[in-house]
Amino acid sequence: MEQFDYIENPHRRYNPLTGEWVLVSPHRSKRPWQGQVEKVVEESRPSHDPKCYLCPGNERIGGEVNPNYKDVYAFQNDFSALLQQTPKGVFSDGELFRAESESGICKVICFSPNHSLTIPEMKVENIRKVVDLWAKEYEELGQKKNINYVQIFENKGAIMGCSNPHPHGQIWASSSIPLEPSKEALTQKAYYEKHGRSMLSDYLQSELEKEERILAENDAFVALIPFWAVWPFESMIISKRTVPDLLHLSDKEKTELADIYKKLTIMYDNLFEVSFAYSAGLHQAPTDGQEHPEWHLHMHFYPPLLRSANVKKFMVGYEMLATPQRDITAEGAASRLKNLSPIHYKQRTK
Amino acid sequence: MEQFDYIENPHRRYNPLTGEWVLVSPHRSKRPWQGQVEKVVEESRPSHDPKCYLCPGNERIGGEVNPNYKDVYAFQNDFSALLQQTPKGVFSDGELFRAESESGICKVICFSPNHSLTIPEMKVENIRKVVDLWAKEYEELGQKKNINYVQIFENKGAIMGCSNPHPHGQIWASSSIPLEPSKEALTQKAYYEKHGRSMLSDYLQSELEKEERILAENDAFVALIPFWAVWPFESMIISKRTVPDLLHLSDKEKTELADIYKKLTIMYDNLFEVSFAYSAGLHQAPTDGQEHPEWHLHMHFYPPLLRSANVKKFMVGYEMLATPQRDITAEGAASRLKNLSPIHYKQRTK
Ligand SMILES: O=P(O)(O)O[C@H]1O[C@H](CO)[C@@H](O)[C@H](O)[C@H]1O
Ligand SMILES: O=P(O)(O)O[C@H]1O[C@H](CO)[C@@H](O)[C@H](O)[C@H]1O
Repeated sequence: MEQFDYIENPHRRYNPLTGEWVLVSPHRSKRPWQGQVEKVVEESRPSHDPKCYLCPGNERIGGEVNPNYKDVYAFQNDFSALLQQTPKGVFSDGELFRAESESGICKVICFSPNHSLTIPEMKVENIRKVVDLWAKEYEELGQKKNINYVQIFENKGAIMGCSNPHPHGQIWASSSIPLEPSKEALTQKAYYEKHGRSMLSDYLQSELEKEERILAENDAFVALIPFWAVWPFESMIISKRTVPDLLHLSDKEKTELADIYKKLTIMYDNLFEVSFAYSAGLHQAPTDGQEHPEWHLHMHFYPPLLRSANVKKFMVGYEMLATPQRDITAEGAASRLKNLSPIHYKQRTK
Repeated sequence: MEQFDYIENPHRRYNPLTGEWVLVSPHRSKRPWQGQVEKVVEESRPSHDPKCYLCPGNERIGGEVNPNYKDVYAFQNDFSALLQQTPKGVFSDGELFRAESESGICKVICFSPNHSLTIPEMKVENIRKVVDLWAKEYEELGQKKNINYVQIFENKGAIMGCSNPHPHGQIWASSSIPLEPSKEALTQKAYYEKHGRSMLSDYLQSELEKEERILAENDAFVALIPFWAVWPFESMIISKRTVPDLLHLSDKEKTELADIYKKLTIMYDNLFEVSFAYSAGLHQAPTDGQEHPEWHLHMHFYPPLLRSANVKKFMVGYEMLATPQRDITAEGAASRLKNLSPIHYKQRTK
């Protein structure tokens, strides 16, 4: 029998951040697709839409009116999944029926007053304002009593459940530490205790040496396809320095984060020449009042598209019941992305 | 402050099978939906489609010809994610880069020669043939060297990544035990060691007493919305007796499984009067050659629809980065389903 080679043979890869595995089937990318084809949404939008509840000066569903904001704008979600005034309490009926009340705050963050823009089309100096707002919200929300985790995220594109194309993200801040950050807290802590360094600093070091999964790099950040990526073009942005959160970044580093965020999302848009849908979010240290020397700031990008602008990867039967599965390797995905033009396709002269 | 009440207040619930929590926001079901609306697929199909690669007598993409099967039919997937002839091996470069070869077998199971049918429209005696084929495949695949888990599942509907409406399911049998069954193996084992009974037998007992989440019951099985359901209308079928797999069911019990599978899927179809999409699958004991007295046979149903035939729940940003979240309670979902007519909407006289 020939030798095992992860570029050719089906295998599983270990994700040291979650402690979980992903099934990789490199040979399977050739299968024909006869399933659902997504609608590609018409791209040209006005810079102001009188019907958009996120545009400056417009009325929201709840009746409030947005100010005439000039750059970024955060407000409390009119349909918050978490509420501040939740009575505390625990329900328990034996080991098998357990519920706990959960309180929190949900906010919406508008990235720009311009309805027609997206991050890859914005100027770095304006994306920087988004980064600053993230930092401010993380700090303010995190200081509140009963807020132990601040999850900042963005759903981009209708196929990622986004109901408004105005460039925006969300924050859900909660009293308990959610599932994914809890897993990452455990693994990062164990690694830090063993090695005295953060897991992601060692990981980044190795990836920079290996080079093949690196998508973009600047002085303070690296964008890469993690070895254990689940989604076809899943990526991460990792800070070069070990810092637990945005508050520990220097002024220059915050601009570098804006810069790499733009570079990565330009690659995504250029891949299929379409505004690339994804869910993305920051993983910062819990705001539970403890020191987190083990925590290493990073951002995950989970884009669903697989083969083209309208064929996505479905995480369904086997993935829901058994193990996440992917059809192309992380290396294949990286080589496709990093060889694209750094200029956004809409900006290119035709 | 008023008292915590899980029917009204945001809270999290514990899933003792996975050890994970779900965030429940009961108040949030009132939010308006302006996002993606799914296409409702035209329902009337011929009983034989000359272009369908699953219909009897037709040629498949790989060139093979299906026999003129009369009830059920299983064959090896032409685009298997797992292959039997995978060279064994491990790749490891420190703790952070780990891959292992994975071998296995993928099969497709046609539920009926009739292209136009779905489980809720089939006769119980014909669904029983599906159950028998599941049992046969579980046994045969599970006995093979290097097959330690046999995952039987079904993706139904285009929005669940199903590329062919012919009634069918799949089996992916693998050398390693996948993620979800691994979690369930641990929790079931711990419970069994502590109590000397299976977790799901105690759970079922309590649910039968409480009644509110029970959807259907017959002599051998119960269909219910688990207390910790994540998807809006997620459900489980649980066997009344503690058995690790289909091979331990009596003849009568296998027919009861077919019966409850039909009853549950009729409820689903009747909810929005549409062929209800879902991913479903059996969780049986690993086929790793060990005894599994702790394992309790069950089947999960993960349907994506939320509000109507064309508005689904998106498991995106917060769910991917933090914690799964739902907008209606398990109790609300159960009460809607169990009050529906037991007759399939297509069979009702208009
Ligand atoms: O095997 P199929 O039906 O071609 O593919 C479908 O089910 C698989 C197993 O859940 C998934 O990995 C695919 O994303 C999905 O489209
Ligand atoms: O808050 P939105 O944008 O209305 O809703 C979107 O994001 C939420 C957080 O990821 C999800 O729970 C919803 O399913 C999704 O449609």
